[in-house]
Amino acid sequence: MSNFAVQATTGNARRALLRTTHGPIETPAFMPVGTAATVKALAPADLREIGTQVVLANAYHLWLRPGVDVISQAGGLHAFMAWDGPILMDSGGFQVFSLESRRRIDPDGVTFASHLDGTTHRFTPESVTAFEEALGVDIAMVLDVCVKLPATDDELRSAVDLTSRWARKAKAAHTRPQTALFGIVQGGLDAELRKRSARAIVALDFDGYAIGGLSVGEPREQMYDTARLSAALLPADKPRYLMGVGTVADIVMAVDCGVDLFDCVYPTRCGRNGRALTRLGELNIRNAEFRFDYTPLDRDCACSVCKAFTRSYISHLSRAGEMLGGRLLSYHNVAVLNALVSEARDAISAARWSQFRDETLARLLPTLHKTRF
Amino acid sequence: MSNFAVQATTGNARRALLRTTHGPIETPAFMPVGTAATVKALAPADLREIGTQVVLANAYHLWLRPGVDVISQAGGLHAFMAWDGPILMDSGGFQVFSLESRRRIDPDGVTFASHLDGTTHRFTPESVTAFEEALGVDIAMVLDVCVKLPATDDELRSAVDLTSRWARKAKAAHTRPQTALFGIVQGGLDAELRKRSARAIVALDFDGYAIGGLSVGEPREQMYDTARLSAALLPADKPRYLMGVGTVADIVMAVDCGVDLFDCVYPTRCGRNGRALTRLGELNIRNAEFRFDYTPLDRDCACSVCKAFTRSYISHLSRAGEMLGGRLLSYHNVAVLNALVSEARDAISAARWSQFRDETLARLLPTLHKTRF
Repeated sequence: MSNFAVQATTGNARRALLRTTHGPIETPAFMPVGTAATVKALAPADLREIGTQVVLANAYHLWLRPGVDVISQAGGLHAFMAWDGPILMDSGGFQVFSLESRRRIDPDGVTFASHLDGTTHRFTPESVTAFEEALGVDIAMVLDVCVKLPATDDELRSAVDLTSRWARKAKAAHTRPQTALFGIVQGGLDAELRKRSARAIVALDFDGYAIGGLSVGEPREQMYDTARLSAALLPADKPRYLMGVGTVADIVMAVDCGVDLFDCVYPTRCGRNGRALTRLGELNIRNAEFRFDYTPLDRDCACSVCKAFTRSYISHLSRAGEMLGGRLLSYHNVAVLNALVSEARDAISAARWSQFRDETLARLLPTLHKTRF
Repeated sequence: MSNFAVQATTGNARRALLRTTHGPIETPAFMPVGTAATVKALAPADLREIGTQVVLANAYHLWLRPGVDVISQAGGLHAFMAWDGPILMDSGGFQVFSLESRRRIDPDGVTFASHLDGTTHRFTPESVTAFEEALGVDIAMVLDVCVKLPATDDELRSAVDLTSRWARKAKAAHTRPQTALFGIVQGGLDAELRKRSARAIVALDFDGYAIGGLSVGEPREQMYDTARLSAALLPADKPRYLMGVGTVADIVMAVDCGVDLFDCVYPTRCGRNGRALTRLGELNIRNAEFRFDYTPLDRDCACSVCKAFTRSYISHLSRAGEMLGGRLLSYHNVAVLNALVSEARDAISAARWSQFRDETLARLLPTLHKTRF
């Protein structure tokens, strides 16, 4: 029995059901980021209320703090953070390679200094997979080599080849059937390298495939082009995950490319910085225009923040640096992305995807240039 | 009809019902502090879940930010902050007099520079009462003169006399029947001045009376002595409020003195600083001993944080500086104080107050010296 069933398609866009040990995920799905075993400012009950299906956690951060012992002795990450839904764990490749001068790469892994206390640690494809399995996550990402853009052809090519080598090692190290293992395609913005990477990774037959190395500052059109090209290289009967995306517009475009899963710090980081997502684009809620605005953040939003609180109140909280401000905005912003993917699923089922896509993007158009990552 | 009905007494301790425009308050009651129209880190739904009956807000902070216009145009403070229960508003006397070099006092009021932006503002007994009425709070405190201890006899005496003068002016300015007005007794630790103050304030016939100028760093025994003396000077048929208290031990002692209402930043400030209240005293949840402690914050606590989360997890959140840590601890800590006053009410009704008092204090004794304000 396959753990992934496509239920409807319109063009490349597809609606599917992904089964995991901790329950099903209807895709397209947005995964809020719970870096340190908490989606910042939100409790598990909040996440459930707004229809979150799956949470992302990060191997790099949890490896360093609180460490594998604290979490495994709790009975795994689900018990530790009191979230009983699916968890996808990022391998930490992106974080480790962001350390730059603080890490040394070799053919078998990467040795790095913790950003917290400078202690030395080593990630290998095997040690990361073992960590992810010890924590009992539903979906584990292989350790990949993530290159900062722009990069030379040589840098990109060697990152692709090392990612493939490590993917093979991670696959061989994978033993826990309750944890699905996803491969990652790299290759920057280079079509030939993306093909080379996809060929090698797909040949290893993972439970799902991620498109990595995008949404790292490249022009939006190039990201879309590469996502579209990469998605088409991945098998239709496996889930596709675009890492680090994103905004409303980026999610819509990626669904249109045939991507199923997304994660980004965007809705919660925006929330802590006083930014609200709405159907008409982002608001900086601290702006003077909202002081006397007694309407909800988004008139069309059904979340409990929009039912109870006004822009005026949230503007006050955010200006005053009150924790409740970041909390209410984070809640609403994740709710907006959850509603977006829910509506996308319905649009795909009802064969009106392209209409939904165009209408959603058209509403955002006047403010799209202002959107930040 | 009186708005305050004593239902049971044991010694000086009493259980009563205080009726307000936004509903009844069973006393003894603890009021969490919502300085800037938010109890820090907690939403109104959280406060209701843990049995909060009344919230304190602060005239000084709300006068400066967001200002009377923003809140009154929202329909008042209840609508602005989406809290439909009773609100007591502190007059801001304590905050203004803490400004020291940034304020100038005269017989009719005090002129001060905002701590936010240095702009000049003026509080008079009349302007503060008008502000409190414009915000529609249930209980308004008169503007008082709060002296930092230690103080000279002259300083204390002139503060008492000015507080009496201003109380008379506030009483004369009070027009809104839905807002009860409470007087404040000052006098430092001086019994004669406390008597002088109480005589003058009680003669003005307020809806209730606060004991001010305590819990400002004086030795605990002196605070208890003065609270006991002051409470005895206040009419038995009106509510008594000890401002700025407090800890579990302080609340128990004050109930024993015949006090009905309490407020303090203590449970929420502790929460943000990684401190958990328990029946056995405070814990610094960041201590290494809690890293592998998979028990709840307090085994005897029925709050939803203690049902769902472990000390280990909250220790991790607090060490990592995650907002959820402060939120969960604040929630639990306010729940502990709400449970304390609820049990105190039951003990008074059941004529076993002195037993409850002694048992509660005895449990805390081993850690009492460590308790912080």
